[in-house]
Amino acid sequence: MRALQLTGPGTLELREVPVPPIGPDDLLLRVGAAGICHSDLHVLEIPFRLRDDPLTLGHEVAGTIVEIGDRVAGHEVGERGVVYLCWSCGVCRECVRGNENVCLAAGRTAMPPCPGLGPDGGMAEYIRIPASAFVPIGELDFAQAAPLADAALTSYHAIDGARDQLRPGATAVVIGVGGLGHVAVQILAATTAAKVIAVDVGADKLAVADACGADEGLLADTGTAAAILERTGGRGADAVFDFVGVEQTARLAVESVAPNGAYRMVGLGGGAPELTAAPAGGPGWPWGATVRKSYGGTKSDLIESVALARSGRLRVEVEIFALDDGREALDRLADGRIRGRAVLIP
Amino acid sequence: MRALQLTGPGTLELREVPVPPIGPDDLLLRVGAAGICHSDLHVLEIPFRLRDDPLTLGHEVAGTIVEIGDRVAGHEVGERGVVYLCWSCGVCRECVRGNENVCLAAGRTAMPPCPGLGPDGGMAEYIRIPASAFVPIGELDFAQAAPLADAALTSYHAIDGARDQLRPGATAVVIGVGGLGHVAVQILAATTAAKVIAVDVGADKLAVADACGADEGLLADTGTAAAILERTGGRGADAVFDFVGVEQTARLAVESVAPNGAYRMVGLGGGAPELTAAPAGGPGWPWGATVRKSYGGTKSDLIESVALARSGRLRVEVEIFALDDGREALDRLADGRIRGRAVLIP
Amino acid sequence: MRALQLTGPGTLELREVPVPPIGPDDLLLRVGAAGICHSDLHVLEIPFRLRDDPLTLGHEVAGTIVEIGDRVAGHEVGERGVVYLCWSCGVCRECVRGNENVCLAAGRTAMPPCPGLGPDGGMAEYIRIPASAFVPIGELDFAQAAPLADAALTSYHAIDGARDQLRPGATAVVIGVGGLGHVAVQILAATTAAKVIAVDVGADKLAVADACGADEGLLADTGTAAAILERTGGRGADAVFDFVGVEQTARLAVESVAPNGAYRMVGLGGGAPELTAAPAGGPGWPWGATVRKSYGGTKSDLIESVALARSGRLRVEVEIFALDDGREALDRLADGRIRGRAVLIP
Amino acid sequence: MRALQLTGPGTLELREVPVPPIGPDDLLLRVGAAGICHSDLHVLEIPFRLRDDPLTLGHEVAGTIVEIGDRVAGHEVGERGVVYLCWSCGVCRECVRGNENVCLAAGRTAMPPCPGLGPDGGMAEYIRIPASAFVPIGELDFAQAAPLADAALTSYHAIDGARDQLRPGATAVVIGVGGLGHVAVQILAATTAAKVIAVDVGADKLAVADACGADEGLLADTGTAAAILERTGGRGADAVFDFVGVEQTARLAVESVAPNGAYRMVGLGGGAPELTAAPAGGPGWPWGATVRKSYGGTKSDLIESVALARSGRLRVEVEIFALDDGREALDRLADGRIRGRAVLIP
Repeated sequence: MRALQLTGPGTLELREVPVPPIGPDDLLLRVGAAGICHSDLHVLEIPFRLRDDPLTLGHEVAGTIVEIGDRVAGHEVGERGVVYLCWSCGVCRECVRGNENVCLAAGRTAMPPCPGLGPDGGMAEYIRIPASAFVPIGELDFAQAAPLADAALTSYHAIDGARDQLRPGATAVVIGVGGLGHVAVQILAATTAAKVIAVDVGADKLAVADACGADEGLLADTGTAAAILERTGGRGADAVFDFVGVEQTARLAVESVAPNGAYRMVGLGGGAPELTAAPAGGPGWPWGATVRKSYGGTKSDLIESVALARSGRLRVEVEIFALDDGREALDRLADGRIRGRAVLIP
Repeated sequence: MRALQLTGPGTLELREVPVPPIGPDDLLLRVGAAGICHSDLHVLEIPFRLRDDPLTLGHEVAGTIVEIGDRVAGHEVGERGVVYLCWSCGVCRECVRGNENVCLAAGRTAMPPCPGLGPDGGMAEYIRIPASAFVPIGELDFAQAAPLADAALTSYHAIDGARDQLRPGATAVVIGVGGLGHVAVQILAATTAAKVIAVDVGADKLAVADACGADEGLLADTGTAAAILERTGGRGADAVFDFVGVEQTARLAVESVAPNGAYRMVGLGGGAPELTAAPAGGPGWPWGATVRKSYGGTKSDLIESVALARSGRLRVEVEIFALDDGREALDRLADGRIRGRAVLIP
Repeated sequence: MRALQLTGPGTLELREVPVPPIGPDDLLLRVGAAGICHSDLHVLEIPFRLRDDPLTLGHEVAGTIVEIGDRVAGHEVGERGVVYLCWSCGVCRECVRGNENVCLAAGRTAMPPCPGLGPDGGMAEYIRIPASAFVPIGELDFAQAAPLADAALTSYHAIDGARDQLRPGATAVVIGVGGLGHVAVQILAATTAAKVIAVDVGADKLAVADACGADEGLLADTGTAAAILERTGGRGADAVFDFVGVEQTARLAVESVAPNGAYRMVGLGGGAPELTAAPAGGPGWPWGATVRKSYGGTKSDLIESVALARSGRLRVEVEIFALDDGREALDRLADGRIRGRAVLIP
Repeated sequence: MRALQLTGPGTLELREVPVPPIGPDDLLLRVGAAGICHSDLHVLEIPFRLRDDPLTLGHEVAGTIVEIGDRVAGHEVGERGVVYLCWSCGVCRECVRGNENVCLAAGRTAMPPCPGLGPDGGMAEYIRIPASAFVPIGELDFAQAAPLADAALTSYHAIDGARDQLRPGATAVVIGVGGLGHVAVQILAATTAAKVIAVDVGADKLAVADACGADEGLLADTGTAAAILERTGGRGADAVFDFVGVEQTARLAVESVAPNGAYRMVGLGGGAPELTAAPAGGPGWPWGATVRKSYGGTKSDLIESVALARSGRLRVEVEIFALDDGREALDRLADGRIRGRAVLIP
């Protein structure tokens, strides 16, 4: 089969490789679609290879079951699904509580094995997955389903952990309306009655946010924090979701989140918010606000994201590419020229 | 009456002043006891005066009602109580939800008027308070009751916001076993089944922690984070309460809190934890952990702290001073020579 | 002024009475609109008078401030608002936690004084209220605002207590699409992504539900429980809100609520669900499901309901009547001939 | 091996049977202890057999791994553990959220397969279990560990679902201080600061409650509800845990639970509380109180119960019997002559 593989630092090749054999607890999926994520760019750029042999990228995968391991019950060939990306142990204290994304077996680093980052991913014609990672999608389109695995999952998890802040009358800010941000706007619109303010440097991105149900869009500039404070009676936004995570957005988040509010760092751009154990004053970090950086989401988050998509409340904006055009899609993503999510169809 | 007043930067005087007149919604209390807090040291040291005329210090106050405003119902002369220190508006969205400590009327700064920091405080023979700030204490000793107003309230609030992390089998770390920390250990012991590890630079403080119910004490040094990780299977503590808040303790907290854990900055020593929007790795800020700095607590937190004290589950370690010895008590506090909480008895 | 008063059992009179004097903590409102509630019918029918002198009915009231008590701060003449109907003490443990609807001062009965049920209500030209009961509505239409005081408040409270059950993928059942039910459907649609099934005996009511955002309507008959089970994979609905509360609806709720689901009795029709402390089996009360009957809601619930209405996410279906036609409006309500909520405009 | 088997309605025989073969996902345990539960009496009495061939009783089981299925990872021979009794599917929406006790695969009945009630149980020398049901206990005594599987699990689950009601200052009532009730008293004492009132018909049981940390004991009689109201300012208990579940205790619970309180039916004695959809008044069902009957608990509840026992905060009162004396132990349990929990040691 053909697979888009990382064969060296920054080197991506479309190679012909064998269809992966499966073990007794696995499923083999024929890939229907594989989303491209900003973290794929990180993987390309990091100055080391994740493993010695070529790695098939792709952690947003949807497909059809074509082969079933001997010990797997409850599935049948032809079933359609999306792949939960935290391949966690399933038995530890955290997994048992439904916190598979911080599985104890992954130690303090708390990143369970993830397809495309350790095991081979889904930018290929077939993928081997543990049966426990399969989440049914019914008749949902594969290109719609694949981005649920990360773009929706990660957004959903960040939002779900801030529900106390998202009551009617509350204001939520979404910084960065890309692959995750435009999904976050929809999740907020579908599951809360909060006012949603989208912030981005591109007017085209704000147009996407508007179509996704944002109540207002703000072009990011030096006055953005003041604009948010003005719209919230000087108090700040009840929740700020930062899908960029650079210095400017971290500062914006600290300056615009309300006391007792929620600041969620989702984008991993290396920004560091100034949080000081000192009495508040002026524009600084307000009392009671929580800051959190989360990894992916729980399997339940994915199930609920799929439910949103199947009921029509969430529709990912996608640009479709052939597997051969994977490199081009990644380049365009790096240049900020993807509207919504890029998806490869093998 | 006599009152301990801040008359200029760093200048404290015991002065003879008139008993304060009360308004129709106020109560006049004869002060039974007034606790001394680290923030009183901050007030002394800050290079500006909070207001132009002399300010009576003291925001931890317990006493007896001696006069009742015309419009106040439900109280009687002779009733004993402790003073809730957030004199909030009572009608805004946050007050109505029971979040008086972040009252909207106080704007983004979210610090409602507090006795001893704006209005006159309780290091005096009498104090005027709004009737809504009075919380009954029954027969509880005044010297026990006064520190509940801040030492218990602030600790309780920090702990209460981390209950999800404090399930049986969890580990809680208390950094700094002073006025607040030794109360926090007791609140943890009384209301959770978490294992409590106390950390301090003084062996005498660890002895206090032990008497308060801590399961273990660690003398703070460069190996403390490693020691906590060792005791938690390499995972980190589910909750870290930092009652110091300097650079070293902020670093310790980040390095020893678990994924999905809670790091609560209570001490305001100016430390700034390094929290970067970047993938975790090594000893850095773990996925899912929340960081929060909170101001005081809610009135409900104070009511529950009083309930703990009245039932015998919480006993503040106090050193008693006469009002005349207020300066000495503050000096000893500054030198770290107070065991538990210093309390003035007028 | 004119006031619609209960002057004896079942006897309603439009009488000329003095404008009520206000106390120092009160506001006088010129009534803009007063909603009519099923509980007004109960008040008419109960075989005793709530007090000896004539009682002005009306606990759903919106209006304009025309006079302000001496001790009231933060309000001005001309301000428009809706009246929170639990006139609770404001200082007890429950009020302080934001649970004013079960104010301790009201004892075990837990029904604080309510306009139109003890104090004079709002079916009149003017009403006296405690200032703490005033919730601003901005420019919201009075006829829209008045029903928020009970129809929205009570529905919102019932729903808010079941949010854990209302995650994406969940199913909510609303039984009875009258004054409260049609509001409940909108609150569910605005604040959750649950699938909403409306149940009623009238096809016209199901049409209202459909316009309010229900996903499906079921005409109530002996097969309704089976129909709900069929739509939920045999499991039952995650939450059932019963706005009727008679024997048939109580049985339907028990037979159609899911394990770990929420059954909320809002209508007080005297039905008694069969809940037996015995192992489940067949169609009986499922494991883990909670049953709850709640009174009104919290002030925070009202603030959030107002936020929903002001943002356009909630629009009460109203039929407008003049004060003179109050009796007719009540009769039509008794006959089930009101679409949505009847509102009197003085 | 020897096994205590139900061979017909009411007929219990100690039989010699083969050691059960295990499948690839199973473990074989040498049983260290097996607790006897009231539900075993129900199984004996029900007028039908659960299956056609003899059934080994026992759903509270602790033991040592002696054989490991081919596909099981992460376990080793000699490991000691307790058996989680809900043998749920592990992949459904509820299991994934950590609600294994209401596994979707068990349909509306929501009772997953349980050893001793379908599959063979642990009143035998060996038991076959699915590996996912094994929870490590470290060095905990088997006789202590076995009752955690139900007596602690079920109590813990009921209490954990009422934590909002169990804040400092709250009052909890435990009705029935038998195998579950005496554990519940300890869980309440270890994990909350609520005042605990134990109610029982036997003074000896109240002595057990006292030793377990109850604050007060009440001999059940017609004045018990009044006594509870008297101790709670006329308001009622914030949480009532009924471990009996007959008519009298159901009535007591309704009459003594507070508004917004929690009534948890754990004992399944067939009592039916009177809950009517009508305005409250007098001693009836108060506003806002929830009623819930739950099945077992979650795997996380068991893990946390084990943590309580291992830390010394929970110690089950046990009476030890040999396997040969199983019938006698059951008879004594039926007569109310067991102090705490009866445990068989094979």
